[in-house]
Amino acid sequence: MGMLRAGIVGATGAVGQKFVALLQGHPWFTITALVASDRSVGRTYRDAVNWIGTTGIPASVASMDVLPFRDNLPCDMIFSGLHASVADHAEPTLARAGYPVISNAKSFRMHPDVPLLIPEINPEHTSLIKNQDWQSGGYIVTNPNCSTVGLTCALKPLHRRFGLEAVQVTTMQALSGAGYPGVSSLDALANVVPFIGGEEDKLVHEPNKLLGTVAGGVLQPTSIRISAQCNRVPVLEGHLECISVKLSTSASREDVVDAFESFVSPIKGLGLPTEPDQLLHVFEDEQFPQPRRHSDLGGGMTVSIGRIRPCEVLDYKFIALSHNTVRGAAGGAILNAELLVKQGLLHARADKITPSEPLT
Amino acid sequence: MGMLRAGIVGATGAVGQKFVALLQGHPWFTITALVASDRSVGRTYRDAVNWIGTTGIPASVASMDVLPFRDNLPCDMIFSGLHASVADHAEPTLARAGYPVISNAKSFRMHPDVPLLIPEINPEHTSLIKNQDWQSGGYIVTNPNCSTVGLTCALKPLHRRFGLEAVQVTTMQALSGAGYPGVSSLDALANVVPFIGGEEDKLVHEPNKLLGTVAGGVLQPTSIRISAQCNRVPVLEGHLECISVKLSTSASREDVVDAFESFVSPIKGLGLPTEPDQLLHVFEDEQFPQPRRHSDLGGGMTVSIGRIRPCEVLDYKFIALSHNTVRGAAGGAILNAELLVKQGLLHARADKITPSEPLT
Amino acid sequence: MGMLRAGIVGATGAVGQKFVALLQGHPWFTITALVASDRSVGRTYRDAVNWIGTTGIPASVASMDVLPFRDNLPCDMIFSGLHASVADHAEPTLARAGYPVISNAKSFRMHPDVPLLIPEINPEHTSLIKNQDWQSGGYIVTNPNCSTVGLTCALKPLHRRFGLEAVQVTTMQALSGAGYPGVSSLDALANVVPFIGGEEDKLVHEPNKLLGTVAGGVLQPTSIRISAQCNRVPVLEGHLECISVKLSTSASREDVVDAFESFVSPIKGLGLPTEPDQLLHVFEDEQFPQPRRHSDLGGGMTVSIGRIRPCEVLDYKFIALSHNTVRGAAGGAILNAELLVKQGLLHARADKITPSEPLT
Amino acid sequence: MGMLRAGIVGATGAVGQKFVALLQGHPWFTITALVASDRSVGRTYRDAVNWIGTTGIPASVASMDVLPFRDNLPCDMIFSGLHASVADHAEPTLARAGYPVISNAKSFRMHPDVPLLIPEINPEHTSLIKNQDWQSGGYIVTNPNCSTVGLTCALKPLHRRFGLEAVQVTTMQALSGAGYPGVSSLDALANVVPFIGGEEDKLVHEPNKLLGTVAGGVLQPTSIRISAQCNRVPVLEGHLECISVKLSTSASREDVVDAFESFVSPIKGLGLPTEPDQLLHVFEDEQFPQPRRHSDLGGGMTVSIGRIRPCEVLDYKFIALSHNTVRGAAGGAILNAELLVKQGLLHARADKITPSEPLT
Repeated sequence: MGMLRAGIVGATGAVGQKFVALLQGHPWFTITALVASDRSVGRTYRDAVNWIGTTGIPASVASMDVLPFRDNLPCDMIFSGLHASVADHAEPTLARAGYPVISNAKSFRMHPDVPLLIPEINPEHTSLIKNQDWQSGGYIVTNPNCSTVGLTCALKPLHRRFGLEAVQVTTMQALSGAGYPGVSSLDALANVVPFIGGEEDKLVHEPNKLLGTVAGGVLQPTSIRISAQCNRVPVLEGHLECISVKLSTSASREDVVDAFESFVSPIKGLGLPTEPDQLLHVFEDEQFPQPRRHSDLGGGMTVSIGRIRPCEVLDYKFIALSHNTVRGAAGGAILNAELLVKQGLLHARADKITPSEPLT
Repeated sequence: MGMLRAGIVGATGAVGQKFVALLQGHPWFTITALVASDRSVGRTYRDAVNWIGTTGIPASVASMDVLPFRDNLPCDMIFSGLHASVADHAEPTLARAGYPVISNAKSFRMHPDVPLLIPEINPEHTSLIKNQDWQSGGYIVTNPNCSTVGLTCALKPLHRRFGLEAVQVTTMQALSGAGYPGVSSLDALANVVPFIGGEEDKLVHEPNKLLGTVAGGVLQPTSIRISAQCNRVPVLEGHLECISVKLSTSASREDVVDAFESFVSPIKGLGLPTEPDQLLHVFEDEQFPQPRRHSDLGGGMTVSIGRIRPCEVLDYKFIALSHNTVRGAAGGAILNAELLVKQGLLHARADKITPSEPLT
Repeated sequence: MGMLRAGIVGATGAVGQKFVALLQGHPWFTITALVASDRSVGRTYRDAVNWIGTTGIPASVASMDVLPFRDNLPCDMIFSGLHASVADHAEPTLARAGYPVISNAKSFRMHPDVPLLIPEINPEHTSLIKNQDWQSGGYIVTNPNCSTVGLTCALKPLHRRFGLEAVQVTTMQALSGAGYPGVSSLDALANVVPFIGGEEDKLVHEPNKLLGTVAGGVLQPTSIRISAQCNRVPVLEGHLECISVKLSTSASREDVVDAFESFVSPIKGLGLPTEPDQLLHVFEDEQFPQPRRHSDLGGGMTVSIGRIRPCEVLDYKFIALSHNTVRGAAGGAILNAELLVKQGLLHARADKITPSEPLT
Repeated sequence: MGMLRAGIVGATGAVGQKFVALLQGHPWFTITALVASDRSVGRTYRDAVNWIGTTGIPASVASMDVLPFRDNLPCDMIFSGLHASVADHAEPTLARAGYPVISNAKSFRMHPDVPLLIPEINPEHTSLIKNQDWQSGGYIVTNPNCSTVGLTCALKPLHRRFGLEAVQVTTMQALSGAGYPGVSSLDALANVVPFIGGEEDKLVHEPNKLLGTVAGGVLQPTSIRISAQCNRVPVLEGHLECISVKLSTSASREDVVDAFESFVSPIKGLGLPTEPDQLLHVFEDEQFPQPRRHSDLGGGMTVSIGRIRPCEVLDYKFIALSHNTVRGAAGGAILNAELLVKQGLLHARADKITPSEPLT
């Protein structure tokens, strides 16, 4: 298989930058198009971007020209780091033009025909793609909100083994989840902001879609009652969540620990480059996991679990930590694309548009 | 009424310093004894203390000599900022010697004959004092753990109006709650530590004692099921708590808001100097309260409530914020002492020991 | 003397809010006009402002209507918290309309006829006002940049006693100095930004104007060589500066300490309400002063000095700390207004415009 | 060449942990002995250490037994992460027993016969080793204090090209430089501590030793006048320094930039595994370098330079950033060991003590 050509829309934003950083050295995908708003078009990526990463702009993209948005881009697939307000219109345009759109935006996450995808959790949901009617071979696949991912990865083994009736979750979310410039330092430093617009609603609905089943081509979400309280804390990377669950069947603490530890990802063995060795890592040290120390586990793709213990109100409580800009955004989307490749749903386009040809 | 003479044991520690700071200009109490460990004895307070406050060591105490612990101190009452390991032994010694001991230590909080006291919540619990059998006129009264106070103040109006069956609480607690030097900056900065030793247990039991009733001279605690998850966050002052409650009777959101807003403290009108105008302040702005902005409300004695909304799992959820070193420690203890004065349980000792007399 | 009516332009910004907060309970000034941009006009101050203070919006102004900018405002004087881009035009308009404009903006600081004023340093510079030719009785007086104030207050006693030839200063400046939202939390948290636009230049020129003399109605600045390096650090309030000085005459360390400690403010005894007891407080503890602990000294109006010691390259080095939004902004401006009142340069306007009359 | 066996003394401390982390996968060195205090002896490294790193305890050392200090350790060389108080005695003991001791402690840095070594700056200083008279083949080599390294690497090209007469430096140092638990979070958060014990003195003397020359077997230090002001700021990794220099000969800004950019390390081409591609990286963006973004450059071994501009008092000023626990501690020491290997001064010991043999 030759390298697949990846385009990134919203390439200069915080999520777009993370796509650029994580795709460096990727064995299957190579960046061939960087698309951003008019302000950036015509400049090199180096000049257009306010690079916020700690590793420097990769040399391979630094001198690439930023392209305008259009429906003929020199790539086989699109990673979308667009804001929802732009993605609402842009992503259908790209799908209609025949591109697989691997999106991090919230715009189509809850659309019944659009897979909301975590490869280790619901790889079979990609079958929804064939319900999408773009007449072009294109489609949209989404990854969940950054706070949904850790929660859902933690809930899956419990739901499969015991059934889940209800979930209480309180999040302590990193500043990077708000993008750049995002939260003012005067709100962030030595403070907690106990509100994140729209976030709690996503935590109520997205896990039920992710844990649902596809039957007869139709997605049937679960109906777990979820209550979320979301907070922004002065942490750079890593969303920590305090979770309490009510199970459908009784379970000992050992059963719960075992459910986490024995969970086998259904994509194990497919050889997806971005899949971590462990989806879930269970800590026994009651001080762990901590955002600053453990967010990078598994290259930022492992979800850490800790402090598993009985709950006085529901059945069990524990904490979960996930890297919000890797597992919860760009890394998750890249893993989605890898799964689509393995499933035969993402491949080189016949009509190769090359970056060098004249473009309108 | 002349000024009552206050002694402070553990005077150089973080809580002791807060007693010193808050007692400046107090209309009823004046500091006449500062007691600390051998290391400090014989030095002036200025020299013995590593003052961590932002207002400077008050001139009135700076040159006082630090006294050794003993059972004849030149004061009418003792504020105890001792660590539990020392308080276990020291506080009974002082009570036996005839001193009212107003303690912030956890040692005797759950003892059936020792009032665990928040004046606005359970002023009648001071009747338990007469069960204490020190043969001396002395006694011990305690204030709750810093994370218990905000929770219990928020629960009281709900419990009284609707009855409470279950409570879920996730705390985000300030660094000052761990004392000085307390948490290492390498653990605190840009991080969350999802564990505080012993804290969750206190949140399970202390509110049930505080909300209990005294009948026939015996305390009958409530039996509300409480589940707590405690976290240390990089905040300087103010414990923020995400709370969800199951009520015994149905209530509309307006009922819940009204329960908070119409709560009248039973000590209103007694003229206690440290009592805030409002025990509870309800914010409508969904971004509020925030630790850095609102902990100081009511001189640090008001508990702030916000984000009242239905809970998908229990009945209602909301957030509460309280100042952990004022309301949750020294300020709460001083208010306890003020209540005891008004109830006629705390007064000048007949056998006045003066600071100038020779001491063993 | 009746109360003077104070208007605040830029009333909803960070500096404007600080004016509002600091003028509460002021014995001479009462707020009668709050002016902000079109977005805020017609709303109450409570609704228009995103209040960032920790003490709550004062009740006395919360329900005042925000007024549009115009040249007939119901006040005797104007405090300007405008950005320079707006102040460039607005402040002359107000001066021309006859208002004393007490400005925190940088627009006219270096104008030869506009006093750049720190009352304890150069109160005689107000004589420059008469050079201003607005034909109206109005004028502009400015206070220095927030990083200039601490430096200049520290330099004055040395310059007067020993003469100053050269100054090296490296600043570590608080986030609040950048206004709100100001610095992104992703730039601020656990980081230093080693650049503040325009700041170093102000540190080179403003102290030389402040330390200059007025002769024959003309300001003669000093010509001390100053080199500045400015950094933004994750601190909320308080600019800390590491300073090294070359003196014109030799001095012992004791001489230098004495110069600081024996400095007597020329306005001592005038009874200006905002003047602190001490302009300069010298710490002997080599760990002090620290921004979080000591910025509030003297109500935020005292400049703290510490670590006075010989310098291996110039003559002496030491550190200075000042509160950037009190002494360095709104508090400094209010003290300027108080001085102008005492000097007979600021008084009630004859043509009293009242807030209730119809306005264009 | 087979792998050389590395022992680490002080293996459970902050510096020791960094040695462990950085030696993972090292092509020349393999860890064969972990030595710590009595408290840790007999436990596995995993159990003995409070691991503060973000990458997890390496599997290869986690189950190694911690050894007691003694003079026959199963290794060819010793990396010392000891505190000076222990190193004073322990390092000579090890050198006397025949071990090359590559030390990060301050104990022997200024001893005339002990090389204070930065391989890119003064590799020829290792000739001082032969002056050491341990009668055993052992010796001590030290790396400089963490704040000295960045400064000296920045000064070297200027000193070589123009000569240096005087240097002013103000540091903003990361919390990790104080070890663990190190600075209290109540001192660190939203604050600056303007004092670091002993640090300024090291900055005065160590660079003069490092920039000195060895003639006739004797080290002749330079006599550059250096004045330092050291501050602890709330940053996790990376010491940022504001530097101003007086040159012996005149130079344009372009000359200064060129001196940095054209600097060629004398060890270039030796193939030392830990040497970065660039010793010095010059930023043109005036906002850079920043500790959080750029400390990791060159794997933490590159020193970043920025904001080069004329100084109003001396000749030029600029900023330098270096990673304090990599370049400034363990990484620097490992590079020292690599240089010693290449120079033929460090090799396998004949008397191989293996970890399995019985030890006293």
